[in-house]
Amino acid sequence: MTSNLTLALLQLPVGADVSLNVRRAVEGITQLKAENPELQLAILPESFNAPYGVEYFAKYAESIPDGATCRALSRLALQLGLYIIGGSIVERDAGKLYNTCTVWAPNGSLIGKHRKIHLFTMNIEAAHGGGVQFDEGAALTAGSELTVVKIGQHKVGIGICHDKRFEELARIYRNLGCSMLVYPSAFCICQGPMHWELLQRARATDNQLFVVTCSPARDNMSGYVAYGHSMIVDPWARVQREAGEGCEFIVEQIDFDMVEQVRRQIPIHQQRRTDVYAKARADS
Amino acid sequence: MTSNLTLALLQLPVGADVSLNVRRAVEGITQLKAENPELQLAILPESFNAPYGVEYFAKYAESIPDGATCRALSRLALQLGLYIIGGSIVERDAGKLYNTCTVWAPNGSLIGKHRKIHLFTMNIEAAHGGGVQFDEGAALTAGSELTVVKIGQHKVGIGICHDKRFEELARIYRNLGCSMLVYPSAFCICQGPMHWELLQRARATDNQLFVVTCSPARDNMSGYVAYGHSMIVDPWARVQREAGEGCEFIVEQIDFDMVEQVRRQIPIHQQRRTDVYAKARADS
Repeated sequence: MTSNLTLALLQLPVGADVSLNVRRAVEGITQLKAENPELQLAILPESFNAPYGVEYFAKYAESIPDGATCRALSRLALQLGLYIIGGSIVERDAGKLYNTCTVWAPNGSLIGKHRKIHLFTMNIEAAHGGGVQFDEGAALTAGSELTVVKIGQHKVGIGICHDKRFEELARIYRNLGCSMLVYPSAFCICQGPMHWELLQRARATDNQLFVVTCSPARDNMSGYVAYGHSMIVDPWARVQREAGEGCEFIVEQIDFDMVEQVRRQIPIHQQRRTDVYAKARADS
Repeated sequence: MTSNLTLALLQLPVGADVSLNVRRAVEGITQLKAENPELQLAILPESFNAPYGVEYFAKYAESIPDGATCRALSRLALQLGLYIIGGSIVERDAGKLYNTCTVWAPNGSLIGKHRKIHLFTMNIEAAHGGGVQFDEGAALTAGSELTVVKIGQHKVGIGICHDKRFEELARIYRNLGCSMLVYPSAFCICQGPMHWELLQRARATDNQLFVVTCSPARDNMSGYVAYGHSMIVDPWARVQREAGEGCEFIVEQIDFDMVEQVRRQIPIHQQRRTDVYAKARADS
């Protein structure tokens, strides 16, 4: 098996019409697969099927895997024979709502379901870029499970947006053997210029793996304005590809051999002083 | 007590003459204090008193706190009434050698001694910038203790160079209440362009504190060429000040109120899911 993987990021616009949002995603992936028969994995943005906002979550919630959005993704994965990391949708389960990423195999089966572990809470004051207040926890319940899926032979760890800020989560994924992390994300434009690329490159250099984000396209007229700049960072922490702010599709081949090249040349994983950390944590 | 701290970074050249290296450090700090009476803390580079290299470590080793270099730093701190984070020197103790940072209080007393925990091992291949092989472990013994010192009212965590690559160390310092991390560092010019600034900004944004590095000046004629670019990064992960590559002194006032401002606006510390991490670590 080759260590190359061809993946697509769909930085899609998201409006109030769910069926239109899903159709755009389906048509986009179908088009990309037609143009790039080697395409193996398509990645969608956080909240790709509905507007993002505390006031919308209950209205647009669906069940997993029986809801309309999931059925469309499952069908598409099977029809095209590729993996889909389905960004996120609001999931309704047993009276609770979650921000959930579904992962679909080329046979149409659901191979991963990640409920956002770290709900987004932010209180940026006006001095820093206009001010943003947000509290997902007002409407959503947080997940409590890590999600590792196999894309071909490669272990991939899933997080959603704010999960990216927590380096301890990425560290555990690395220790579990992941060679790529994927974070569907709708980062706000307030944090984006400061931290979007930095966080992604930080996770890549500490854990020596690929880190991929997929954002909705920026829409300055929406209530919550996503940053855009969907990005692939390689295990040297270099930006391999980056989208702009508008609607944009990226198709890129990545080489997983690079993971081992970096880990061999800068062998930090073996140098971790777990003895020292354990003692210091116990003492603190 | 004010939350401001005025600190100096001395990006000094380092040659084969130990007494000259130490004299340059003493004269530099003395000059900066004369020009900046508000100066409270001076920071020196890793291996500031002797050339850096496996072949040199035994030759230049000194005891702590009785060696000539320590006596000079202690006298200077007392004489000028300021804190000194004394970069690093090679320490000889009970037949072993360590790469050790000493920290001196304004009364001349030794308030911290940090032995580099993660020894530098690197095997960069020629395709990436010329190639660098290095193995500190061939001559040095690693430390096994974290080092937190109080600079005025502020807790400061100490690391040395390669320690900066290990995000788990920085996380523990943050959990112990540090509001600044200081890494005297002689990063190689091979890694520098890729990771020097990135690592420093990563630690700052994950832990929401100041991160300070101090490098020797670059000397392209030496056996090991240090990167330079001594740097102060603020808790928003912005580069507040950065040196170039040559001999350069920086004096800068930092505002510790910024630490609380960032932590209030992006309250990630309280959002850490230690329950999830503990379970996932146990299962892995």
